[in-house]
Amino acid sequence: MTPLAFRRKVRDGIFTGPTAGQCDGFVQANLTIVPEAHANAFQQFCELNAKACPLLAVSNPGEWTLPALGEDIDIRQDVPAYWIYRNGQKTEVTHQLLDFWRDDLVVFALGCSFSFEYLLLCEGLPVRHVELSGSAPVYATTLPNQPAGPFAGNLAVSMRPFKPADAIRAIELTSRYPRVHGAPVHFGDPAAIGIRDLGKPEFPGIVDVRADEVPLFWACGLTPQVALLDAKLDFAIGHAPGHMLVTDLRLDQLAPS
Amino acid sequence: MTPLAFRRKVRDGIFTGPTAGQCDGFVQANLTIVPEAHANAFQQFCELNAKACPLLAVSNPGEWTLPALGEDIDIRQDVPAYWIYRNGQKTEVTHQLLDFWRDDLVVFALGCSFSFEYLLLCEGLPVRHVELSGSAPVYATTLPNQPAGPFAGNLAVSMRPFKPADAIRAIELTSRYPRVHGAPVHFGDPAAIGIRDLGKPEFPGIVDVRADEVPLFWACGLTPQVALLDAKLDFAIGHAPGHMLVTDLRLDQLAPS
Repeated sequence: MTPLAFRRKVRDGIFTGPTAGQCDGFVQANLTIVPEAHANAFQQFCELNAKACPLLAVSNPGEWTLPALGEDIDIRQDVPAYWIYRNGQKTEVTHQLLDFWRDDLVVFALGCSFSFEYLLLCEGLPVRHVELSGSAPVYATTLPNQPAGPFAGNLAVSMRPFKPADAIRAIELTSRYPRVHGAPVHFGDPAAIGIRDLGKPEFPGIVDVRADEVPLFWACGLTPQVALLDAKLDFAIGHAPGHMLVTDLRLDQLAPS
Repeated sequence: MTPLAFRRKVRDGIFTGPTAGQCDGFVQANLTIVPEAHANAFQQFCELNAKACPLLAVSNPGEWTLPALGEDIDIRQDVPAYWIYRNGQKTEVTHQLLDFWRDDLVVFALGCSFSFEYLLLCEGLPVRHVELSGSAPVYATTLPNQPAGPFAGNLAVSMRPFKPADAIRAIELTSRYPRVHGAPVHFGDPAAIGIRDLGKPEFPGIVDVRADEVPLFWACGLTPQVALLDAKLDFAIGHAPGHMLVTDLRLDQLAPS
């Protein structure tokens, strides 16, 4: 299925689930949507924390298209699920934003590590949560972000387990794509980055690390949503974890920086 | 010091030690020298096991120059120490080959991981055995090589310890240089590749893995010398471990493959 056809199924309410494993070879994006009053600070936050927040596109205030990322994108309807934040609380989960849209909203699309999973599978590396038809678990760490305006918080990371030789290949391959988070930030002992219990991710997913495997941790595009909770904006929107915007960009179009 | 000036000090008998940390930024090479009768099989062995045996240059029979690797190289005198093998035994250690040379000898120069250590240091990654003015320890594994003619045996690996975040950077950086062994082949549990005791390398070096570090293992250019023991050639020569040929090639001239 083309990304356009996939987004149509989302827009029509036919596809409402997580997007891992959908439209192999195309870039998937995290969304953070903030009022214009906070847009400059948020853009600075992304630039200061580019490993977690690699900017793919930014809209003009009130615009719901992202022409750089795909044909006829309507950001209000083309993502399977959204989280609404009000005053530092997650208040609603919704499948469309038509009733929530405001003319001052600015859309930020950030690269997502789901994008490189197809590449790993093509190279014969098993991606556990894709094999088991789930999502990657995401953890809050104690590694602090660089703050900008009201945005701060700690790095969030996604986890995938590999045998050491496969882990080395995964590091090699993902390091070529910094715009979808690049190489991992850590592997091995979860406690070294402040994860107390691997079995209890902040954002659930498949946690199945076998005896001969080590967990690898990649910077995650949910990092700004953790920052949103602390920032206590009156209003903001994020994609629901695992429910990404599937773009028309092919992974090989993201030139290594 | 230029590589040429360094090789002159070696030729004059002034420098006879290990070459780690010498002539930063220049490629260092392992040597294996075999009689012409075995040269084709040995070249095939290198091509089949390119991770351990990345070929930089091969001489014509009896030639002691390697013009592709540097100005006025005399392979008989420009390496600080050599090991002589006879019938599968190491029989002599020598600082020059003038008394051992034969008109049927073919020289194989293979990339050495010492070459990328300067790159790691430039990026702020600590290289323990360079910091402690020693050599990298080298281990025999139980990972079998692809056999060719009389050459077989198991992979040999060099070890360097890093913290996980530095290990990821080291994997990223070294993966760009396959002609000096590229990315590691393993990290973590030594027993997984058949190393019983990290404290007892086959070829001694600095073994100092700290609590928050993991050992990384790179394919090593001593692999063919381990294979030489089994191959039981009537006569062969290798560089002494850690005592490499310093070439005029800069690391950045080794185009990523």
